[in-house]
Amino acid sequence: MTLAEQRLEAVRRRTNVEAILFWSLENIRYLCGFSGSDGVLIITGHERVFMSDSRYEEQARGEVRDASFKKYRQKIEGVARFLQSLRLKRVGFESAAMPYESYQKLKGRLPRASFIPLSREIADLRSRKNLEELEKIRRAIHVASKGFLDASPRFRPGVKERVAAEFLECRMRRRGGDKTAFDTIVASGPRAALPHGAASEKRMGQKETVVVDFGVRVQGYHSDETQTLILGKPDAAQRRIYETVRRAQEKAMKTIRPGVSVRRIDAAAREVIARAGYGKFFGHGTGHGVGLAVHEEPLISPRGRGVVEEGMIFTVEPGIYIPGWGGVRLEDMVLVTPHGSEVLTVLSKELKENVYTG
Amino acid sequence: MTLAEQRLEAVRRRTNVEAILFWSLENIRYLCGFSGSDGVLIITGHERVFMSDSRYEEQARGEVRDASFKKYRQKIEGVARFLQSLRLKRVGFESAAMPYESYQKLKGRLPRASFIPLSREIADLRSRKNLEELEKIRRAIHVASKGFLDASPRFRPGVKERVAAEFLECRMRRRGGDKTAFDTIVASGPRAALPHGAASEKRMGQKETVVVDFGVRVQGYHSDETQTLILGKPDAAQRRIYETVRRAQEKAMKTIRPGVSVRRIDAAAREVIARAGYGKFFGHGTGHGVGLAVHEEPLISPRGRGVVEEGMIFTVEPGIYIPGWGGVRLEDMVLVTPHGSEVLTVLSKELKENVYTG
Repeated sequence: MTLAEQRLEAVRRRTNVEAILFWSLENIRYLCGFSGSDGVLIITGHERVFMSDSRYEEQARGEVRDASFKKYRQKIEGVARFLQSLRLKRVGFESAAMPYESYQKLKGRLPRASFIPLSREIADLRSRKNLEELEKIRRAIHVASKGFLDASPRFRPGVKERVAAEFLECRMRRRGGDKTAFDTIVASGPRAALPHGAASEKRMGQKETVVVDFGVRVQGYHSDETQTLILGKPDAAQRRIYETVRRAQEKAMKTIRPGVSVRRIDAAAREVIARAGYGKFFGHGTGHGVGLAVHEEPLISPRGRGVVEEGMIFTVEPGIYIPGWGGVRLEDMVLVTPHGSEVLTVLSKELKENVYTG
Repeated sequence: MTLAEQRLEAVRRRTNVEAILFWSLENIRYLCGFSGSDGVLIITGHERVFMSDSRYEEQARGEVRDASFKKYRQKIEGVARFLQSLRLKRVGFESAAMPYESYQKLKGRLPRASFIPLSREIADLRSRKNLEELEKIRRAIHVASKGFLDASPRFRPGVKERVAAEFLECRMRRRGGDKTAFDTIVASGPRAALPHGAASEKRMGQKETVVVDFGVRVQGYHSDETQTLILGKPDAAQRRIYETVRRAQEKAMKTIRPGVSVRRIDAAAREVIARAGYGKFFGHGTGHGVGLAVHEEPLISPRGRGVVEEGMIFTVEPGIYIPGWGGVRLEDMVLVTPHGSEVLTVLSKELKENVYTG
């Protein structure tokens, strides 16, 4: 039994359900290997069945492991019919992924069955990575790094954010990425105060700070990294804010080892920023797990729960965002090791001077 | 009042809800202009409120029109508190988009309010496009066409599907696309029998058929098109199957005018394919609406509902997929005009011979 199988079996027993219905593509891929974009996976104590429609039949027959394949014409109807044939009374379902409407329709067709929402019970299913997953994530990080190095000459004054983003995305693809992990953020000058500033038509300017948040997907697994560039010799404020974020990131990283609460890791970064007087300019969490989803468990935030465990992989990405001025964010991915953590991200976050002046 | 506002007002009255809670990013963008990736929109008879967290505050203040902005720290808690302050008793919500878990948590915090799932009632909210939307879609189609023409020399024997797909995606971005609309499909030879065959490491071969399904997003709106290339002089089977799909597509297009049922349009394509003896090799619907989502209402399928109306924009994309042999799909986007339809897609679907032989 794999770690995931053990966890699932424990969930089934603890929640007393006869089957679990998986709806999210990430969990489906994780548990049976299907990489397409529609289907459901049903796991009982005795069998695993992946269901999809005719568009994915050949793909499923080629990809799916440890599960049989059943075809449906219409998703809800097909799933209902199959569950009915098993005469199940208690069926757990992935409530964070399944839309209310699908639940409602399924319940409508199987009024005698109890559908038990499972959310926190299965939220951490994928949070500890095995070696194969770690290798895929390393590969994604590597591809993204090479793409970033290829593209870095485009990050210079006078170039439009959108053009630089597009070039970076193409280079990451060229270097072996299956797709970009998310819309690349390139936010320069005052726009860097937008933590999620999509690349715009704005041209990057001399001396501006530029937040570049980028990632790529390789075999389903993602990378996620943020560099903050300064297009010229940093002024005092840029240097102070950059170094504050850098210290916050390092402090958080040093806190990481198995058994430490996610809140403590978040607090470590937050404290450094607060002490430097920028507390109110750091509005988001310190990090999030990365794997088959770009955002997954664990959440490293003041509202996060639980402790980190060996094998977890997550980002550490404090930032300071000052409306009107701009912002700095530094983001690396780390792996929790038996006694601490390892930074998986390859590219350094040291303040680089006079590199991007064009 | 815009068309969308009229429709919403009618929905509110018909379902007797005091407010509608929008959860899908497409509807949120449609109704208030916010283009970021997290938030909710609440529309009552008196006001419209867009809510999001600090990451999107500046963006929301810049983008959102016809709605005020409220910030939350935690989504469900923030929405619950706001709904509570309005003392609403009946709140409609987008049940196809809202996960069961979010419903459950919201309901848990507001036990006295009734939450009314709205799905079919609002499914066609965006289906009739206005002129501004039509222009954005035309632009997306134009960008994709130019990208495809740029990339077409790469579609030749010996080139890997993945490499050609990547090049096409980069060219669509370079030509002005904000992002690719979906993972580009490049499926050659026997792989063309996979209706959703993601581009693989397979090299395209001499005389093979290659299904290329591609699209791009411009200002939120998508294009969606499929070309089937034949890398050499078509043999008899290729020609027969290609021409059958072409006739099916043309037949369906001729059927389109306001008031015709979606099933009749689907049947028109299906009949041509069935009469040619390929009925069982056409497993998917004939088309789908395209706009802020790549797949939206109306669905042109044997299970679709209702009639098409002036201003709707959808794909017409019959296909024949023969396991072991390969497949052909031809996909254009059409606009329903007052008395018929207009093909919006620019590139011809005529069988081209000896073009892609490298």
